[in-house]
Amino acid sequence: MDPFTGDPVYREAVVDLLGALAYGELTAFSRLAADAEMAPTQPDKAAVAALAVAEFHHYEVLVARLSSMGVDAQASMAPFVLPVDGFHDRTKPGGWLEGLVKAYVGDGIATDFYREIAAYVDPSTQELVHAVLEDQGQAEFVVKVVSEAIAADPSIAGRLALWGRRLVGEALSQAQRVAVERDALASLLVGGTRRPGADLAEIGRMFARLTDEHTRRMTLLGLAA
Amino acid sequence: MDPFTGDPVYREAVVDLLGALAYGELTAFSRLAADAEMAPTQPDKAAVAALAVAEFHHYEVLVARLSSMGVDAQASMAPFVLPVDGFHDRTKPGGWLEGLVKAYVGDGIATDFYREIAAYVDPSTQELVHAVLEDQGQAEFVVKVVSEAIAADPSIAGRLALWGRRLVGEALSQAQRVAVERDALASLLVGGTRRPGADLAEIGRMFARLTDEHTRRMTLLGLAA
Repeated sequence: MDPFTGDPVYREAVVDLLGALAYGELTAFSRLAADAEMAPTQPDKAAVAALAVAEFHHYEVLVARLSSMGVDAQASMAPFVLPVDGFHDRTKPGGWLEGLVKAYVGDGIATDFYREIAAYVDPSTQELVHAVLEDQGQAEFVVKVVSEAIAADPSIAGRLALWGRRLVGEALSQAQRVAVERDALASLLVGGTRRPGADLAEIGRMFARLTDEHTRRMTLLGLAA
Repeated sequence: MDPFTGDPVYREAVVDLLGALAYGELTAFSRLAADAEMAPTQPDKAAVAALAVAEFHHYEVLVARLSSMGVDAQASMAPFVLPVDGFHDRTKPGGWLEGLVKAYVGDGIATDFYREIAAYVDPSTQELVHAVLEDQGQAEFVVKVVSEAIAADPSIAGRLALWGRRLVGEALSQAQRVAVERDALASLLVGGTRRPGADLAEIGRMFARLTDEHTRRMTLLGLAA
């Protein structure tokens, strides 16, 4: 059965979700491609460029799905340009290591959040969301490079820990902005007249999970959350 | 028969050719990713990002071939870092249109030159070189965008024509540098003790072909060569 039949709010919410993801992936491509330019060695550069390329392929998959739904993919991304660009403008990495921490910690919390939302969508949309959020090897690569850098010079850990906290603060403030402006998307989480969502207790548990996962990532990097 | 058996100079030449191409593709990825950031619209940005991604996949193919030959791909690229970076440092595009003209006219002449060299290598190497040099849709995209921009504002044609001439001048001067420093690679073109190459008349005809093709591309853009 078409999951969108007779439920325009749900359809709008899914379009929002895919549009937000698509613009996020296109931006991730740009950001990782710029990060690659800061790499100290050519293999590091190629490794980060490969991550950028993987994000672009996710963007293509999302655009294809939006198009197959008869949606103008560009229009669906438009509402998310300001918040996503706003996040990146406020969190320009000051070098190679800050770029890597952002790619791991910032994308990590965004990914976890999208996965939480995906718990409330139809199986086909859910499968697509999980596929484009799959780790392309970022985690392993970033944890290795950053923890080696900290081992070599423990004095950088304080600055990177602060950076990690700032990333989360900015991500939450932009997510808040999206939630306020995009009713349909927010309704995925809290439910609507026809669909069940999370109750307040469940939303509380969700935030606890997001925070736990963030702390786990910071710890893997050798940083205090 | 292994085309490299008993001919270390030929093997070295092929490694040079693939190493030069690989570093060129990695750099093309970086440059096109940066060009994408200058795009005036999101579809334009995605179109140029897709070109960047295609170059990165060519880079991966070349690294895989070098590795399968038992060659350290990074080492094989090293001799070409200075000339390729030198070319790009001297030809930083001053905006979206200059970036596109560079991607079409600059890469065009480089591609033609590599194809000429590929006439003198074994069929398997030749096939690989042709595959990674295949047009990914650059030509069509750039010709459309640039000729529309010139139609809308004919006054920009003079500046872009100058830019095209500068690109060719810088490309030739870096190619010259490579030819002087990489004997094995140069020997592909002029031949060696065991292999036939091009005689002087053929080299003259090759330059005429390169120039003709360059003129044809400039004309397609609506520019004087």
